[in-house]
Amino acid sequence: MARIVMKFGGTSMAGIERIRAVAARVKHEWEAGNEIAVVVSAMAGETDRLVNFCREASSLYDAREYDVVVSSGEQVTSGLLAIALQAIGVPARSWLGWQLPIRTSDGHGSARIAEIDTNGLAAALVAREVAVIPGFQGVAAGERVATLGRGGSDTSAVAMAAAMKADRCDIYTDVDGVYTTDPRIVPRARKLSRVTYEEMLELASVGAKVLQTRSVGLAMKEGVRVQVLSSFTEATDDPEPGTLIVGEEEIEDMERQLITGIAHDKGEAKITLTEVPDHPGAVASIFGPLAEANINVDMIVQNIAHSAGSTDVTFTVPQADMPRALEALENNREAIGFGGMVHDTRVSKISVVGVGMRSHAGVASKMFKTLGDRGINIQAITTSEIKVSVLIEEDYTELAVRVLHTAYGLDAEDAA
Amino acid sequence: MARIVMKFGGTSMAGIERIRAVAARVKHEWEAGNEIAVVVSAMAGETDRLVNFCREASSLYDAREYDVVVSSGEQVTSGLLAIALQAIGVPARSWLGWQLPIRTSDGHGSARIAEIDTNGLAAALVAREVAVIPGFQGVAAGERVATLGRGGSDTSAVAMAAAMKADRCDIYTDVDGVYTTDPRIVPRARKLSRVTYEEMLELASVGAKVLQTRSVGLAMKEGVRVQVLSSFTEATDDPEPGTLIVGEEEIEDMERQLITGIAHDKGEAKITLTEVPDHPGAVASIFGPLAEANINVDMIVQNIAHSAGSTDVTFTVPQADMPRALEALENNREAIGFGGMVHDTRVSKISVVGVGMRSHAGVASKMFKTLGDRGINIQAITTSEIKVSVLIEEDYTELAVRVLHTAYGLDAEDAA
Repeated sequence: MARIVMKFGGTSMAGIERIRAVAARVKHEWEAGNEIAVVVSAMAGETDRLVNFCREASSLYDAREYDVVVSSGEQVTSGLLAIALQAIGVPARSWLGWQLPIRTSDGHGSARIAEIDTNGLAAALVAREVAVIPGFQGVAAGERVATLGRGGSDTSAVAMAAAMKADRCDIYTDVDGVYTTDPRIVPRARKLSRVTYEEMLELASVGAKVLQTRSVGLAMKEGVRVQVLSSFTEATDDPEPGTLIVGEEEIEDMERQLITGIAHDKGEAKITLTEVPDHPGAVASIFGPLAEANINVDMIVQNIAHSAGSTDVTFTVPQADMPRALEALENNREAIGFGGMVHDTRVSKISVVGVGMRSHAGVASKMFKTLGDRGINIQAITTSEIKVSVLIEEDYTELAVRVLHTAYGLDAEDAA
Repeated sequence: MARIVMKFGGTSMAGIERIRAVAARVKHEWEAGNEIAVVVSAMAGETDRLVNFCREASSLYDAREYDVVVSSGEQVTSGLLAIALQAIGVPARSWLGWQLPIRTSDGHGSARIAEIDTNGLAAALVAREVAVIPGFQGVAAGERVATLGRGGSDTSAVAMAAAMKADRCDIYTDVDGVYTTDPRIVPRARKLSRVTYEEMLELASVGAKVLQTRSVGLAMKEGVRVQVLSSFTEATDDPEPGTLIVGEEEIEDMERQLITGIAHDKGEAKITLTEVPDHPGAVASIFGPLAEANINVDMIVQNIAHSAGSTDVTFTVPQADMPRALEALENNREAIGFGGMVHDTRVSKISVVGVGMRSHAGVASKMFKTLGDRGINIQAITTSEIKVSVLIEEDYTELAVRVLHTAYGLDAEDAA
C-alpha cells in the first residue's frame, strides 16, 4: 500500500471519453490498495477560452476576478472525474481549493501555495475514497479564490504530495518521459529512467517543457519523488516506465553519465549596446532599468574595451520582453550613454546539462570544439555548476543539438 | 438612494459585448447613488453544456458533484461582470455562494436557500462597491457546493433582495414585462403595469414562463417588490416601465380588472383509466403509485358511475412524466383493477387568471360559453380562487386564447 498523487494535464482531461480513461487508470491504482489523490487540469483549451474572456472584458483586469473566472475550468473537470470514478465503482469526491483549503499567497494570477490543510482529506483517504483536487487553484487572504499561474497544476500536485507525505507524485502527460534531447530533432534520443531535480530544473528552464519549473523546484525542496508518465498508454500492472525525478543520492553511480541531456531554446533575443563608456557603474546603468521593468536578463558578454575608452555590451532577454527592453533602454539612453543599439531574434541557446560535470573538467571545451568543427560561431556563453549554454545563430539549432548529442555519447544504440 | 437587486439572465450575459451592456446599465443605477447587488446567470447555453457533461460522465451522477460542475457557469459570469464594471470605473467584486455564504438545504441539484449572511456584503455596499453574485448557487452542509435547480437565479435574486432588505428586485430578461397573454398569439395583448404575486404564480405555473415559480412564491412570502424589465432597451434616466409584481394591497382599485391574463400550457398529457371499480378507495389506489413516483397530477375528472358499478377516471400529468406514469399504473393494474388505459398528449390547458374573480361570479360560465360558441369541447376543468382552467384539444389553443382575450375585455385599443 502506498499513498500516491496522480496528476493529469489538459490533454488527458479533454472530453468525457478521456476523463473516463483517466478514471480507469485511477481505478487500477486504487484496486491495488493505494490511497490516492488525483490533481486535474482544465480541459485542453478551456483555460485559454476563460483567459480570453477576461482580456476581452478589460485589458487591465482585476487579478482577483480573473482568478474567479479561470479557476472554473479545473472545478468542472474535478467534478466530472469524481462522477466518472463513481460510475465505475470507485468512491470519490472533489475537494475545491477553498474546501481543503489550499492556502496561497496574495499574488493573484500567480500565487504561491503557502499551506495545505489535509485533515479533512486524510479521513477520506483512510476510508478508501479517492480525492479529486482541481489543480492551479487555492484560496488567498480574505477567502478570495487564487490561481497559481499557467502550468500551475504541476505545482499543485507536488505540493499535495508534500502535504500528504505521499510516496510518489505521478505526473501523467502527453509525452512518456524526459529525453536526452528533443526526439523530433534527434531520433536517437534516449528516454532517461532517472534525472535529478537540479538537472530537470536546468532542462526545464532552457526549453524542455515537460514540467512547470516551479513544480520541480518545490519537489526538490520538499523531497517529493516525481514520476513523468504517458497518459496515453493503457493502464496495466506492468506499465511502461516513465522518468523518475529524484535527489542526486538516488542516482546509482553506474547509471550516472557525464552529460544528461541537450536542450535548446529559440525564445531568446540578443541586444547589443555599442560604444558604452568603459567606467565603473556603466553596466549597472544598463541593467537597472531592465530590472525595474521586471525583465530577466540571461547571458551577458562585455567586450574588451576599445582604445577610445568605450566598450560593447551584449545580453539576451526573453523574446516576448524585447520590445519593452528596447523601450526601457531608449528611455535611459542619456544616463547609460551608449552610442548604438542593435537587436537580433534569430538566435538560439544550446545547453548541455548534467550533474556529472561537477567532477569532470573539459565539458565546456568539448562543446566549443564540437561546434567549432562544424563552423558554428558562438556569440555568448553562460555556465552554471551543472550546465554550459552557448548562444548561436538560430539556423544552426538542429545541427548543434545533433552533433553535441553524439559527441557526449548520448545516442541510443538500437534506435533508427 | 435605494438598495436594489438587479438580476440578469443567460441571454443578457451571453458574451462579453452583452456583459458590457449589463455593466453600463448597472453603472447607470449606481451613479444615481443606489446601493446595488447584481445577480447573474451563466452565459446562455453554458448550463446545458455542463449538464450534458455530467450526463455523459454517468447517467446516475452524484448530485453533489453535478453541483460542483454546473455552478461554474455563474462563477465565470460573476467574475467577468466585476471586471467589466471596474473597466468603466465602478468598484465591484464577485461574491461566490460559499463566500457570502448563501446557506442552502441539502437537496443537491435543487436545493432551497435557508439563510444568506449579508454582513460581509453590507460593508461593501456602504463603501459604494457593487456586489456581483452568481445566481443558482449556494453552499450546503459540509461546505459542499449546492445549486437551486434550473431557473434558480431568479430565486437567488429574490432571496438576496429579502436578505438585504432591498427596496426592489429588478429582473432583467429578454421580454419587457408580463403580458395579458402571449403576444405571439394575440398581437393586441397588453403589458401589465402591475400584477399580484398570486396572479403571477398562477400565470407562471400555467406556462407564462417569465419568472421561476419558486422565486414568485418567495417574493410573496418575503414581500419583495419584483420588477420585470427588458435588458435589451438602452439604459436611460426614463426607462421603459416593466411589470411590477406586488402585493394585492398595492393594486389601485381603478386599475383592477376582473381578469388579469390568459395563459396556455401545451405541456400536459391526459390519461384515462376505463372500467375502474366504483367503490371507496379506488381513486386512492390510482394516485398513490403516481405520488410515490413523484409525478404531479393536475386535473382530475371522475365520470358518473356506469350501471355496471364501474367508472372512468381522467387526469393530466406533465408530458415529460407520462411514460413513467403509464409504467407506474401498469405495474399496479391489478391493485387498481382498471379495464383499459388510454392517453393523449394532443391537449392544451387554457387558464383565465385574476384576483378580481374573487368578488365576481360568472367568470367560469363566461369562459365555458365563449369556448362553446366556437365549438371548442372542454375535456376537464379545474379551478382555484383566482383561476379557472380547462383542458381542450391542442389544435384549438390559439383560437381559445384569442376569443377569451377579447371576451374578457383585455384587447388593447391602440394595438394593431
